[in-house]
Amino acid sequence: MWGHLHAARLPDGYPQFFARAEGGHVWDADGRRYVDLMCAWGPVVLGHRDPMVEAAAARQAALGDTLNGPAPVMVDLAERLVDRIAHADWAIFAKNGTDATTGCVTIARAATGRRAILVAEGSYHGALPWCTPVPAGVTPEDRAHQHRFRYNDLASVEAAADAAGQDLAGIIVTAFRHDNVVDQESPDPAFARGLRALCDRRGAALILDDVRAGFRLHPAGSWEGLGVRPDLSAFSKALGNGHAIAAITGREALRDAAARVFLTGSFWCAAVPMAAALATLDALATRAVVPRLAALGQVLREGLAERARAFGIGLRQSGPPSMPLLLFDGDADFRLGRAFCAAAAQAGAYLHPRHNMFLCAAHDEADIATVLDAAEAGFRALRAMPGAG
Amino acid sequence: MWGHLHAARLPDGYPQFFARAEGGHVWDADGRRYVDLMCAWGPVVLGHRDPMVEAAAARQAALGDTLNGPAPVMVDLAERLVDRIAHADWAIFAKNGTDATTGCVTIARAATGRRAILVAEGSYHGALPWCTPVPAGVTPEDRAHQHRFRYNDLASVEAAADAAGQDLAGIIVTAFRHDNVVDQESPDPAFARGLRALCDRRGAALILDDVRAGFRLHPAGSWEGLGVRPDLSAFSKALGNGHAIAAITGREALRDAAARVFLTGSFWCAAVPMAAALATLDALATRAVVPRLAALGQVLREGLAERARAFGIGLRQSGPPSMPLLLFDGDADFRLGRAFCAAAAQAGAYLHPRHNMFLCAAHDEADIATVLDAAEAGFRALRAMPGAG
Repeated sequence: MWGHLHAARLPDGYPQFFARAEGGHVWDADGRRYVDLMCAWGPVVLGHRDPMVEAAAARQAALGDTLNGPAPVMVDLAERLVDRIAHADWAIFAKNGTDATTGCVTIARAATGRRAILVAEGSYHGALPWCTPVPAGVTPEDRAHQHRFRYNDLASVEAAADAAGQDLAGIIVTAFRHDNVVDQESPDPAFARGLRALCDRRGAALILDDVRAGFRLHPAGSWEGLGVRPDLSAFSKALGNGHAIAAITGREALRDAAARVFLTGSFWCAAVPMAAALATLDALATRAVVPRLAALGQVLREGLAERARAFGIGLRQSGPPSMPLLLFDGDADFRLGRAFCAAAAQAGAYLHPRHNMFLCAAHDEADIATVLDAAEAGFRALRAMPGAG
Repeated sequence: MWGHLHAARLPDGYPQFFARAEGGHVWDADGRRYVDLMCAWGPVVLGHRDPMVEAAAARQAALGDTLNGPAPVMVDLAERLVDRIAHADWAIFAKNGTDATTGCVTIARAATGRRAILVAEGSYHGALPWCTPVPAGVTPEDRAHQHRFRYNDLASVEAAADAAGQDLAGIIVTAFRHDNVVDQESPDPAFARGLRALCDRRGAALILDDVRAGFRLHPAGSWEGLGVRPDLSAFSKALGNGHAIAAITGREALRDAAARVFLTGSFWCAAVPMAAALATLDALATRAVVPRLAALGQVLREGLAERARAFGIGLRQSGPPSMPLLLFDGDADFRLGRAFCAAAAQAGAYLHPRHNMFLCAAHDEADIATVLDAAEAGFRALRAMPGAG
């Protein structure tokens, strides 16, 4: 079992295996149904088994999936991404978010002929030795040429860039601060603009890690609302509404470097996830998913805040409302969070005690009401805990 | 476009995009049909769109694919692999072959608390900076703690192990020598046994990279026929008959280290590829695929040899007959190989001028006859080339 899904790390009574899912709901292996606020840790943005996406996937599957090269749908998908993503002049496809972030770093190094990459302390960019949050099996050399800065602290970026000196190849940064187990933070617009200016000044590549947030906050790339366009973006999760796909998009100036880097994988030209991604991008636009998620998230946030206040519980909500993180005051060991989530699960809502969650477009007002009722059961459980104030 | 599929690297007139595939055949975007001897560069082992595999995938897809955790099918698949693969006491799943090889190296380092890995010169273990065959964007540190040996040269392994000294964490080795553009070599049994003995003596992990060969040469792991069992194996390609999945299997002694390493990806618990893999493993057994591929490959090999002789052409065939590599004498620039493949493609067979090819169980004797006729057209084209003897 992958570490973060190990039974020992789940709240008491939490399901470890899942039997099925539909729209905004998931059923565990014992047949219990939940309003799903994890959405497969991000990939599901329209809803599980979205009929339009699954129909597109089935049409392609009837023709073929993993072939000797790409199917024509790859051209359509690349063109759609280039149309949609503000900075993108080209796109290349992979499987994992980590494939995309690693590819961006490698392309930045190939393009500049330099080695140093600036990485924010605590940011998650994937699960390979260069970026994994867990040190087991990692050597110091796996992290060579990395300089740390603090998210939203431009002075720390300037200091890291100075430390990198003439060797600065690029800066990789998440769309917002969604580090594990700390309150989430939106990017300060001045911080984002400062990164752009620094990269321009130093001839380095600005890499936006949009794996987690991509297509949930802005249809043209998560920093488009800030008016800041990266040189390279890494996408994955929501791109295929649950089908395994990742993408790197880049500016024209990086095209040659991207072509020189050896990027490949046995299933990277699989056509079914590309057909699913094309349908997902279409649905994101026609269904106006980004504002829909934001509105649902706002109802959830306000409802949770009201109920937490009524119970006198110190609940901290952070991040974009459509990607909420819930943390409790004085809960360093997540004892409160786990008890809250366990009670909410009993009441039919699948929440997470330490990771940000994800709404999807299949959630409706009734689902949010179910989640709020389940949260109320969770707050009640906290009140009933030994030692509760 | 991924580098090796770039139009500039394809033989003249070769298709770059594919419309569909069925059984042992693939159709290009212009509707031309080929007997497919690449089988998607390895994943397709039963045949494209195998009805049993696709039915299992569709049944799981109707329930759900990428969920908040694994579906019960993961347990069935892990148990099937542990039953099937001789050395395996556990299994963990990923997407890319490179995920699996990189995971094995990281687990070996975590288990031993050492850093050095022995890697054969020219062996392909994937497309990340630590192992990519192309240096663009790679730093020297990405290759730190690697010591090189020569495949099938045990003395060179001993020398590399001595260079690693007390720091030897593991040895990674492909199931046979299938380096790009050189004749393939079977593993010398004494070489394989020597690696095993060396790892035992030094407390290092023997890692078998079975990504390309796995499930094509032996159902219990490619070195089982040699009586040599690795500590860790990396599988991918054929495991899901075209569905995106990879697996690491390991011995009990490595289980704790595997649990400590942070191995994860957004789509790694996707249930559809696991259902496909379970059906593929069943079909591999019930259809006796390994001997079937070997027999078909032998017919192909003998037919090609006979025709090459008749044309007086120096054709070298190497590797297991079910994974043939065709190289021409005096063809360092692959001019002959490309002309041969271009003519064969015109005649309805999709071959590769420099990479090993893959048979699948859906190929029949008529397909092999078509390939042999196409090869004859290829040999004729070589005879007609300016400067041909």
